[in-house]
Amino acid sequence: MKEQDCLALAEKVAGRIFVPLEASGRHVHITREQAQILFGHGLTAKRPLSQPGQFLANERVTVVGPKGEFRNVAVLGPERKEAQVEISITDGRQLGIQPPVRLSGDVTGTPGITLVGDMGRITLNRGVMAAKRHIHLSPEAAKWFSVKDGQVVQLQALTERPCIFQQLVVRVSPDFAPAVHLDYDESNACGFRPGDYGRILP
Amino acid sequence: MKEQDCLALAEKVAGRIFVPLEASGRHVHITREQAQILFGHGLTAKRPLSQPGQFLANERVTVVGPKGEFRNVAVLGPERKEAQVEISITDGRQLGIQPPVRLSGDVTGTPGITLVGDMGRITLNRGVMAAKRHIHLSPEAAKWFSVKDGQVVQLQALTERPCIFQQLVVRVSPDFAPAVHLDYDESNACGFRPGDYGRILP
Repeated sequence: MKEQDCLALAEKVAGRIFVPLEASGRHVHITREQAQILFGHGLTAKRPLSQPGQFLANERVTVVGPKGEFRNVAVLGPERKEAQVEISITDGRQLGIQPPVRLSGDVTGTPGITLVGDMGRITLNRGVMAAKRHIHLSPEAAKWFSVKDGQVVQLQALTERPCIFQQLVVRVSPDFAPAVHLDYDESNACGFRPGDYGRILP
Repeated sequence: MKEQDCLALAEKVAGRIFVPLEASGRHVHITREQAQILFGHGLTAKRPLSQPGQFLANERVTVVGPKGEFRNVAVLGPERKEAQVEISITDGRQLGIQPPVRLSGDVTGTPGITLVGDMGRITLNRGVMAAKRHIHLSPEAAKWFSVKDGQVVQLQALTERPCIFQQLVVRVSPDFAPAVHLDYDESNACGFRPGDYGRILP
């Protein structure tokens, strides 16, 4: 067996036992109309993300809060029905906003913020959150781990500063590739390095 | 029983079952000689910390890394035998330094940094670290929880984003008050709020 084949096999076996960890930095989702205002055109793809169909856009924004701002913030495509600004609690401190911990899409009652693009500026009335930790699984992977869409599980992070993350929501869809999504507070807290895995606990 | 007495009793009971969580922001320890250079005098106490004899100093420093700096960083007293700069991994990214995760005092092989006070500037050859999570206990509290100095335990954080922190080192001393020390990455990752407790797992 060639070394390359061995590595590919090892990856495949790991994927049956573990779920890859991913750290999501601060990022923004916007609508088609908002993209027009901010950039004068729709989002264009720079590179694909781990989730099929999702991409990092060439376009970037400045996120402006009451106490501070972040320049050059990633915008993820494709466009969505409503804007959403995902930051860590640490980021919130610098911006002067306390982001509630929410699952993606659950924007009711969340604080607003201002986005600045190279062509325009938008003030959102809501949409700022710290992403609630969650696990993406394909239906096939959900079977391997015997979990269901919406199930809440614990996950052992196999990292330098090990911890067990609790109350992770499992989201199952044919559009998903297996991945645990942590924000930067969580990934730094567990000493995550690219290539690290987690194990769903029974 | 008066309400005040009830609250005091509740606190006492909680202290037998749980350990208070504390979030340590970035801070600096320095020597007597370094205080002289940075401020022209020794450290002066602004307010006491939870650990007996320790204090937050009136004096503050700017911490300067290769890629960024933090102004107005807390200095903790009393002075120590060697300087130590405790930052989070998130802070390290902003400074352009990768802090190794270490227990306090274990500075061998750690990176250096520059400190600026209102009277002078010092470049340290070593001392930058992300503090390894740990638990302070008095000998009495160690008995209640049946753990020993140096023991490695797991801790359930009873917080908004619950998780179990693993590989916490227990440090027992008559000079200690019971407290779990987390850095800001860890405290934000678990959604810590002042007054939250943790439970040492058997």
